[in-house]
Amino acid sequence: MTAPRAHRAAPDHTHPDHVPLLTALSALADPVRLRLVRELAGSADWDRACGSFDVPVGKAALSHHFATLRAAGLVEQRDAGPKRLNRLRRAEFDARFPGLLDLVLRAEP
Amino acid sequence: MTAPRAHRAAPDHTHPDHVPLLTALSALADPVRLRLVRELAGSADWDRACGSFDVPVGKAALSHHFATLRAAGLVEQRDAGPKRLNRLRRAEFDARFPGLLDLVLRAEP
Repeated sequence: MTAPRAHRAAPDHTHPDHVPLLTALSALADPVRLRLVRELAGSADWDRACGSFDVPVGKAALSHHFATLRAAGLVEQRDAGPKRLNRLRRAEFDARFPGLLDLVLRAEP
Repeated sequence: MTAPRAHRAAPDHTHPDHVPLLTALSALADPVRLRLVRELAGSADWDRACGSFDVPVGKAALSHHFATLRAAGLVEQRDAGPKRLNRLRRAEFDARFPGLLDLVLRAEP
């Protein structure tokens, strides 16, 4: 019997309350991250694994984009077996930056 | 009598109605431009010449920042003698991206 494969470290998160405005704006000012946020907004919490998004970037770049979204208080992640699942921190982010998510979810790219 | 010195070309402008969301977010996701926008918001239209802002950048960089703000539909400029005067396009920008200016003018850096 082999030992279970070690999981990668759990992801670091930043609560929206501790996110500077410039960090939030920069995180959203990118077409790939905007797409991720919009797809998450259309999905139930924890429904989407990182690999399930329709974005034209490789695995390393995607991982970087998710790190940026976590650091901006936009996304929370947890590992479930081999999958890393995501949810949009909609309520917390709205409380910190009222109207910003509504705007980016409403407007065209 | 010498001929009057030729003026530089009048600046190009983009109306907010034609500005993509990502362009608007990128324009605001910069500390120098955020400062320019905030100082303009606290000044009357056409009151502020480009050289009157308290930002830690040189003339060429400042000129580039203003070009970015014009392209994002945030700032309108006109030349008056040797000065280039500015106004924040608050109403037009608000109509295109409701709440975004309010948010960046309200939040801390």
